[in-house]
Amino acid sequence: MRLKHIKGSEQIILKASSVIHNPKEYKGNYNKIFNNDNPIYLEVGVGKGNFIIAMAKENPNINFIGIEKYDSVLIKAIRKIENDELPNLRFIKFDATYIEDIFDKDIEKIYLNFSDPWPKNRHADRRLSSERFLKRYDKVFKNKKEIIMKTDNQGLFEYSLINFTNHHYKIQEISLDISKTEIPNVLTEYEEKFRSVGKPIYYVKVTN
Amino acid sequence: MRLKHIKGSEQIILKASSVIHNPKEYKGNYNKIFNNDNPIYLEVGVGKGNFIIAMAKENPNINFIGIEKYDSVLIKAIRKIENDELPNLRFIKFDATYIEDIFDKDIEKIYLNFSDPWPKNRHADRRLSSERFLKRYDKVFKNKKEIIMKTDNQGLFEYSLINFTNHHYKIQEISLDISKTEIPNVLTEYEEKFRSVGKPIYYVKVTN
Repeated sequence: MRLKHIKGSEQIILKASSVIHNPKEYKGNYNKIFNNDNPIYLEVGVGKGNFIIAMAKENPNINFIGIEKYDSVLIKAIRKIENDELPNLRFIKFDATYIEDIFDKDIEKIYLNFSDPWPKNRHADRRLSSERFLKRYDKVFKNKKEIIMKTDNQGLFEYSLINFTNHHYKIQEISLDISKTEIPNVLTEYEEKFRSVGKPIYYVKVTN
Repeated sequence: MRLKHIKGSEQIILKASSVIHNPKEYKGNYNKIFNNDNPIYLEVGVGKGNFIIAMAKENPNINFIGIEKYDSVLIKAIRKIENDELPNLRFIKFDATYIEDIFDKDIEKIYLNFSDPWPKNRHADRRLSSERFLKRYDKVFKNKKEIIMKTDNQGLFEYSLINFTNHHYKIQEISLDISKTEIPNVLTEYEEKFRSVGKPIYYVKVTN
């Protein structure tokens, strides 16, 4: 994704009440943020937030946390709900590389939507479905592990399937073009764009 | 596949020296057929034989067995090698449903090429990658299990990935279009046809 700097974005994020500003303090205790013990689903890389906002609206009995490292997209997500805040949705501005620092058995499901494919082999460890990341997620998950991935990138999808299954995940649902299935789906910004040009969207749900 | 009856095909198969006529006698002892202890790779459903014949020619230190239940295609495979018999290739006319009756820890690799997709849900058990078949293969494999599948059928491919991984197979290689990769590949009859019209061929190698 090409990112442009948006003036004042840091200040906006710092003031936003939908953002958890001190996530390390809640490690293992995010129920204190939400004031309930509902399950917490995590989106790693929320982008402009369409997916997680729609999911939070549709599922009031599930808590959603979206982490995003780029200010310039995160403020777009924040702005979408600033006049319509959702009690079950919070954002964290954070680099997922250090995800173990802010979560400890808090999460029941992880969404990876249109993650950066990092196409060069020497950058493979940066892919959010690399072995390195899967080990990090192991510490973040409560009991059962569940990852749901969507991508338009064939190489990333193939790589992820190999990694998931070698990390003992089993495929529960898969589609090589989710737009042609009846699997319930909430569209991301990317997905709307790719659909309009007929590009297939790959989808997989794995559990362990 | 539409099959037409070919007159005299039963007689041709009965006389062919490339066919193992009494496979039950060799259960657990196929090395007696090949007069060596080289690994045995099995193709379930050889069709007209292009794939297994090319594989046997390219890999003289591996023994290949192809099973096929339909006379009308098997005789085409047999005819292709009747003047050029390969010491490391044998066919068996047999229904894979009863595969445990003819193999016992004999096989090191199974190829499933363009298997019948049996698209109706009520026929799912007939698919060669159904849980029922995977359990049968468990008894056929020597030690490690390895299945290599190619298909042009998206539904069968998705179904197979779910079944393989839930049966504890891990994906080692996968391609959503093998023609665009550098994975070594021998073309089947189907594949040549599909390639010529640009249809993607799905490929996966799983081990357990």
